[in-house]
Amino acid sequence: MQVTSPRRAPGGFPVVGIIGGGQLARMCQPPAVNLSLTLNVLSEGPDAAAALVVPSAPVGSHLEIDDVLAFAKECDVVTFDHEHVPADVLQALVATGVPVHPKPEALRFAQDKVAMRERLTALGLPCPAWATVHDEAELAAFGDLHGWPVVLKTPRGGYDGKGVRVIDAAPEAADWFARGGALLAEECVPFSRELAVLVARSPSGQAAVWPIVQTVQTDGICTEVLAPAPGLDPSLAADASQTALRLAGELDITGVFAVEIFEIPGTDGSAPSYVVNELAMRPHNSGHWTIDGSVTSQFEQHLRAVLDLPLGDVGPRATWTVMGNVLGGDYDQLYPAYRHLLARDPGLKIHLYGKGVRPGRKIGHVNVYGDDLEDLRARARHAADYLEGTVTE
Amino acid sequence: MQVTSPRRAPGGFPVVGIIGGGQLARMCQPPAVNLSLTLNVLSEGPDAAAALVVPSAPVGSHLEIDDVLAFAKECDVVTFDHEHVPADVLQALVATGVPVHPKPEALRFAQDKVAMRERLTALGLPCPAWATVHDEAELAAFGDLHGWPVVLKTPRGGYDGKGVRVIDAAPEAADWFARGGALLAEECVPFSRELAVLVARSPSGQAAVWPIVQTVQTDGICTEVLAPAPGLDPSLAADASQTALRLAGELDITGVFAVEIFEIPGTDGSAPSYVVNELAMRPHNSGHWTIDGSVTSQFEQHLRAVLDLPLGDVGPRATWTVMGNVLGGDYDQLYPAYRHLLARDPGLKIHLYGKGVRPGRKIGHVNVYGDDLEDLRARARHAADYLEGTVTE
Repeated sequence: MQVTSPRRAPGGFPVVGIIGGGQLARMCQPPAVNLSLTLNVLSEGPDAAAALVVPSAPVGSHLEIDDVLAFAKECDVVTFDHEHVPADVLQALVATGVPVHPKPEALRFAQDKVAMRERLTALGLPCPAWATVHDEAELAAFGDLHGWPVVLKTPRGGYDGKGVRVIDAAPEAADWFARGGALLAEECVPFSRELAVLVARSPSGQAAVWPIVQTVQTDGICTEVLAPAPGLDPSLAADASQTALRLAGELDITGVFAVEIFEIPGTDGSAPSYVVNELAMRPHNSGHWTIDGSVTSQFEQHLRAVLDLPLGDVGPRATWTVMGNVLGGDYDQLYPAYRHLLARDPGLKIHLYGKGVRPGRKIGHVNVYGDDLEDLRARARHAADYLEGTVTE
Repeated sequence: MQVTSPRRAPGGFPVVGIIGGGQLARMCQPPAVNLSLTLNVLSEGPDAAAALVVPSAPVGSHLEIDDVLAFAKECDVVTFDHEHVPADVLQALVATGVPVHPKPEALRFAQDKVAMRERLTALGLPCPAWATVHDEAELAAFGDLHGWPVVLKTPRGGYDGKGVRVIDAAPEAADWFARGGALLAEECVPFSRELAVLVARSPSGQAAVWPIVQTVQTDGICTEVLAPAPGLDPSLAADASQTALRLAGELDITGVFAVEIFEIPGTDGSAPSYVVNELAMRPHNSGHWTIDGSVTSQFEQHLRAVLDLPLGDVGPRATWTVMGNVLGGDYDQLYPAYRHLLARDPGLKIHLYGKGVRPGRKIGHVNVYGDDLEDLRARARHAADYLEGTVTE
C-alpha cells in the first residue's frame, strides 16, 4: 500500500485516521473542515464515498495487518467507519501505541452478539430471553419455552437486517445450522416500536446522550427517524438514557455509539418497558438527524470524542427533525431528481454519499425540521421516494 | 501546471471550479460533501486553506491565462474565492465556453469602485457624495464642497480596510497621487452603524435575500456580526433589501454577493436612511453566521446559485446568531486554545481555516446562537479573544 503523510493544518491540529471509506467516514469531513482537523481514510478504493471528499485516502484493506499498520503510522488516533476489522488486526494496531477508539475490548461487544447478550445480562440490563443454540433441537427447545416465532441471529457480521431471521419452526434454520457454529436465539418481543439511544463518550469519561429517537424499519433497513421519539414515556426515556450511559462506562466505550431498543407497551395501564436489541459502536444511521437537528452532530461529536476533546451540546435545534433514508432505486441519474426536489422544498437538507445506485443500497438521506411532525414526515418521505424513483412528481 | 480530472460522484453531479484556495473556497467543501458536488480549486499552493480539505486542488496562478484555461477544462462551472482575477484572464476564460459566475461584466463593479459608483448613481441608488479626483487640488475642492474629513479610496484592489483612508486635508494624500491615476473621493457620512445585505441570485434569475445584519469593524476589519441587525427600522430593511435585489438584477450578478451599507440616523425623529458603501461579489465575511444560523448557508447557496440549482430557504434558525472573527494573535498553537474553548462553551461553533497565524490575519470565526443577544456577544467575543491570545482564561 502506498502511504504518504496527510497535510495537516498548522497550529498543532491532529490527524484522525478512519478505517473504512464509507458514508460514515465521508460525513466526518464537514465537521473536520470546520474544526481544522485532518482526516486520513483507509479506503476500499479510490471511488469510496469518503475518498471522493478527503484529500488523504490511501487505498488498502482493513483485513491486512500490513495495510492497517502502515496507515496507522500517519495518524494521531484511529477510529472506524465500520465494525468489521478482525481481532488480530485490531491487536496489532493497538500494539503500535497509536490510540484506537473504540478499543477492541469494547468493540467486540458490537462485533459479537452473544458476547453482548452475556455482558448485558451480567449487568442486569433489560434483554429479551435469549440462548445460544447449536442445532435444531436446541432451537426447538428455546421456541417451545419462550414461544414462537423466534428471532435467530448469526453472532457476527450482520447489519441492515442481514444475519437476522424470524423463525416459526426449527427446521427453517437447517441451512444456518449446516454451516456450523452457535447461533443466537432471542424471544420475539411484542414491541410497539423501535427506539435508538445515541451516546458519545470520551476516553477521559465525559459522556453525553442525545434525545431518544424513534426508528422506522422497512425490510430490516432503517427508512425513517423521528427526533425526538413522539410521545415517549418520560420515565422510559430517563431509564433508557441511563442504561446507555451505564453501558458506555461499564464497557469503556469511546466515540459515538447507538443502543437500539424495543419499546414494549404496558398492559392494563402500566408504564411501557423496553429491551435492548442491538449495539452499534460508531456513528449510526439513527443519528443522521443530528447533522441538521442538533447543536452538535454525531460526526462532530465522534471526532471530539476520539480525540478526547470536550464534547459539544447535544440539544435539539428544532421541535422535530425527521430523517428519511434514500435507498438506491431504478435509475441512476440522481442529479436531475435532486434539482427537482430542491425546487419543490427549499427547506429540505439533502445528504448524498457519492455512491453508485444499486437497488436497496443506502445512497443518502434527507433531513427536514420544524414544528409540524406530519408535514415533516410527508416531506421527508416524498423526497426519499422521489430520489428512489418510486414517485415521479 | 499539472492538471488531472477530479473524481466526481456517479449520477450526473457536476464539478464546480473555484479560482483561489482561500477560506471562502474551503468553506464551500462541507455543503459540497452534503450535496455530492465535486469541488476543483485552483490553489495558490499545496497548503492553501481549501487545498487542505479538497482532494482536487491543482496549484496555479489566477494571473496566468494558461493556468486558468487548463484548470477550467476540468470544470462544469467556474466561480471565485476572490475578486482579483484580471480582466484579460476573465475574457479568455469566458471565451472557452465554460459558464463563469459571476460574469466579468458584473464582477467589474466589485473590482472597480468608480465603475460601481457610476452605475449606482445612474440607477438612482443611495450613495454618499463622490467624485474621481486626480490631484490635491481636486481633492481639496471636493472636501471644501462636501466637508472634511473625506474618505479616499483606490478604485481597485482594496479589502479589509486596505486602499481606504480618511483624509483631513488634501496634502495627506500626496503619496497616493504621486503614484498616478484617479482616486475615488467620498463624503464621510455620519453613519450610526454598518449593515450588510447578503443576496444570492441564479443565472435564471431566482434571488433570495437573508435578514440584514449589523457588522462591527475594528481598524477596518470586520470583527463581529449580529444577525439580524438589532432594532433595524422595518422600512429601511425593506428598502435596502429591495435595493440589493434590484442591483442583482440590473447588474446581472450571479452567485452570492453582499452590499455593505451605512445606516444614517434620522434627524428630529425622522426615519433612518442609508447609503451603499461597498459591493462584494462572492460569499462574504458578513455572511459567515449563516453556516450555523440560517437554514441555507451562504456557501451552500453560492454552489446552488452558480449551478443554477433552485435556491434554499434563507430563514434564520435562531432568534440571534452572533459571529466573531478570529484574527491571528501572538502565538500559533491554536489547538490547546480551542480545546479550552470547547470545554468552556459546549454550544460554541468554531470554524478555523487551516491557516498559519500572522498578527491581524483572519484565521477563523466562531458562531453562537440563541435568545440572549448580550450573552451571545460576550461568548463570541471571549472565544475570538482567547484564540487571539488577548485573554487567557
